[in-house]
Amino acid sequence: MSETHQNVRKMALADLRQEIRSGRYVSHTAGLGEGFLQTNLVIVPEAHALDFMRYCQRNPKPCPLVGVSDTGDPMMRTLGADIDIRTDVPAYNIYRQGRLEKSVTDIRDLWREDMVAFALGCSFTFERALHEAGIPVWHVENDTTVPMFRSSIETVPAGPFRGKMVVSMRAIDEARVEETVTISRRFPLAHGGPVQVGDPTAIGIADINRPDWGDPAPVAPGQVPVFWACGVTPQVAIEAALLPLVITHKPGHMLITDVPEDAEVPILTTRA
Amino acid sequence: MSETHQNVRKMALADLRQEIRSGRYVSHTAGLGEGFLQTNLVIVPEAHALDFMRYCQRNPKPCPLVGVSDTGDPMMRTLGADIDIRTDVPAYNIYRQGRLEKSVTDIRDLWREDMVAFALGCSFTFERALHEAGIPVWHVENDTTVPMFRSSIETVPAGPFRGKMVVSMRAIDEARVEETVTISRRFPLAHGGPVQVGDPTAIGIADINRPDWGDPAPVAPGQVPVFWACGVTPQVAIEAALLPLVITHKPGHMLITDVPEDAEVPILTTRA
Repeated sequence: MSETHQNVRKMALADLRQEIRSGRYVSHTAGLGEGFLQTNLVIVPEAHALDFMRYCQRNPKPCPLVGVSDTGDPMMRTLGADIDIRTDVPAYNIYRQGRLEKSVTDIRDLWREDMVAFALGCSFTFERALHEAGIPVWHVENDTTVPMFRSSIETVPAGPFRGKMVVSMRAIDEARVEETVTISRRFPLAHGGPVQVGDPTAIGIADINRPDWGDPAPVAPGQVPVFWACGVTPQVAIEAALLPLVITHKPGHMLITDVPEDAEVPILTTRA
Repeated sequence: MSETHQNVRKMALADLRQEIRSGRYVSHTAGLGEGFLQTNLVIVPEAHALDFMRYCQRNPKPCPLVGVSDTGDPMMRTLGADIDIRTDVPAYNIYRQGRLEKSVTDIRDLWREDMVAFALGCSFTFERALHEAGIPVWHVENDTTVPMFRSSIETVPAGPFRGKMVVSMRAIDEARVEETVTISRRFPLAHGGPVQVGDPTAIGIADINRPDWGDPAPVAPGQVPVFWACGVTPQVAIEAALLPLVITHKPGHMLITDVPEDAEVPILTTRA
């Protein structure tokens, strides 16, 4: 029987990882592993790894680099004592020739000696910080998925990787917008400060009630729509790159690391 | 006739770059290009670029990645409108088989189609912030080179790149240490917060008056020696890697970019 979100919510990190590794827990990770950094995942063959890493370095807001495996080594050694990237994410997306083929809960059969795994920061970190500051976010309060839009902002290309930036939207009370910007800028590994405050049309979003991914969320009177760079951006770049095989996490189903969320650098073995 | 530091100090950035490009200015860049990000430089063949980039990602304090060129492209396109890495650094160090062969002021004859250039953040940025906060730093006030030491802190290896972390020392008045830590943590692309506060022997430094690089600097009564990760660290890792050819900047002779020092991300084309 598979574990429910409610059951694993209070588990210690090591137990939670075992539930995910064993395939008993296959759902989303929002609210799990409290206090530890969660990440997006992209796995590409070494032949494209340098270009993908350059793409991340050139687009640090949508693609903040948090950890990179050695070629062919499935252990994410700088992010935890025992993280096997083939089993320790609840669900994966398999892309072939730039098209999503299927979602799976284990990639042991797909892992190859030439694979490189990239962990990229995610927005859960600054959402927790907003919550702690008493700044409510609608999709968190209502347990839906954040609304995401394909914006008109071009990312900086690298090799075959290119495309528009995907942004996520959170409606913030007007009086708290400045504070929200300041708080999110403190987390450069969780997309940093917003890329747009107000006017959705300025970044090519025609209808704020019709997100391209996730669920719609209302912008109440007195609120401002605030847009952040989103970790779905590399999935758009992967589609453009048309590679034979790329593996990512399934959106919302993140890697939970051993790195404290407030660590200055996301490296376990570096002195604080 | 070559330009002096005093002459170029007040030049506009574009003029200053022309002086450097033409070979008229070949000296150090401390205090030049005020308000613009300066960087360390490492150039390696593509065959080793992914490993070197992983080394930087795993050691973000000594090696904060600020820009990476396309393979074979000498223009640092994300750092400026017209930066040619073959000519726009005042002086370069040439390493062969891990040994410093010579220093030159131009590398047009050494650049190859398989070269990748890495720009890494440098400490000038947070030193300016300390200065603005009224926290004096001895080597700046006395126009000497910051004292640097080979510490006992191991860096996280990647491929052939490994070695001890090089640290720089600044003596800070005891009452201002906490503020100094806070200020420097605001600049993750300029080595971030210190790796050690006080006791040099805790990080393997036997004699604080005998730096391995740079000039000695006194620690006055009431002052604490504070140690930061240093951009000379990759040069030690390059020596260990024994590659046929690696090019770096000559210490102190940095690349001056078009990126404002206080930019949230070091990418010119990304929205703030």
